[in-house]
Amino acid sequence: MALDNHTADPLVSSADVNGTTVYGKDGNQVGEIDHLMIDKQSGKVSYAVMSFGGFLGLGEDHYSVPWGKLNYDTSKGGFVTDITQEQLTGAPERPNDWYNNRDWEKRTHDYYAAPYYWI
Amino acid sequence: MALDNHTADPLVSSADVNGTTVYGKDGNQVGEIDHLMIDKQSGKVSYAVMSFGGFLGLGEDHYSVPWGKLNYDTSKGGFVTDITQEQLTGAPERPNDWYNNRDWEKRTHDYYAAPYYWI
Repeated sequence: MALDNHTADPLVSSADVNGTTVYGKDGNQVGEIDHLMIDKQSGKVSYAVMSFGGFLGLGEDHYSVPWGKLNYDTSKGGFVTDITQEQLTGAPERPNDWYNNRDWEKRTHDYYAAPYYWI
Repeated sequence: MALDNHTADPLVSSADVNGTTVYGKDGNQVGEIDHLMIDKQSGKVSYAVMSFGGFLGLGEDHYSVPWGKLNYDTSKGGFVTDITQEQLTGAPERPNDWYNNRDWEKRTHDYYAAPYYWI
């Protein structure tokens, strides 16, 4: 879904972002945001946990994508990413403690060439 | 409530932060987070929209507090703020379009001496 009737607003509620559509570079819908992960200390969004159901047959699995890989497109009312299926399926496997595992975090950010959110 | 059983984790899900307790400097519970407002472009949390029910008789009103006024305390599993009742009741009144009103945002951040999140 799009972000309700506030798509042009610069701020979005944490209660509304879940379910927001994510588009690929070609403009097609590739998935949606399940929830965001927020770094408590800095208040920066660190990951979008996305479901890619329907994205080239990837099923309903969730993937943690560095926030820097998403750009908000006000004209679409959703986020755009340049992540490809190849990138997604080749990304470092997510351990159970991924949200508290700096080694996995580093490898994942390096993999996507995304800036570390913790610096 | 505290942040479930993940209070020591550095990251928190946007789905879990709502309802997190906020403590005053004296350690007493002063309210809780209703939801966060996130700047879509930068991915930074801009405001905590808090309810201060029970905080010195302020009722159940919601207040938008600049994120910089909150600090996460891992030992408490919640956020701590040094905002006082006097500050809260004297803050610039929140217009309906507060989340898209840079004039109100500037006055509010200046009032709380909080750094602008948009710079």
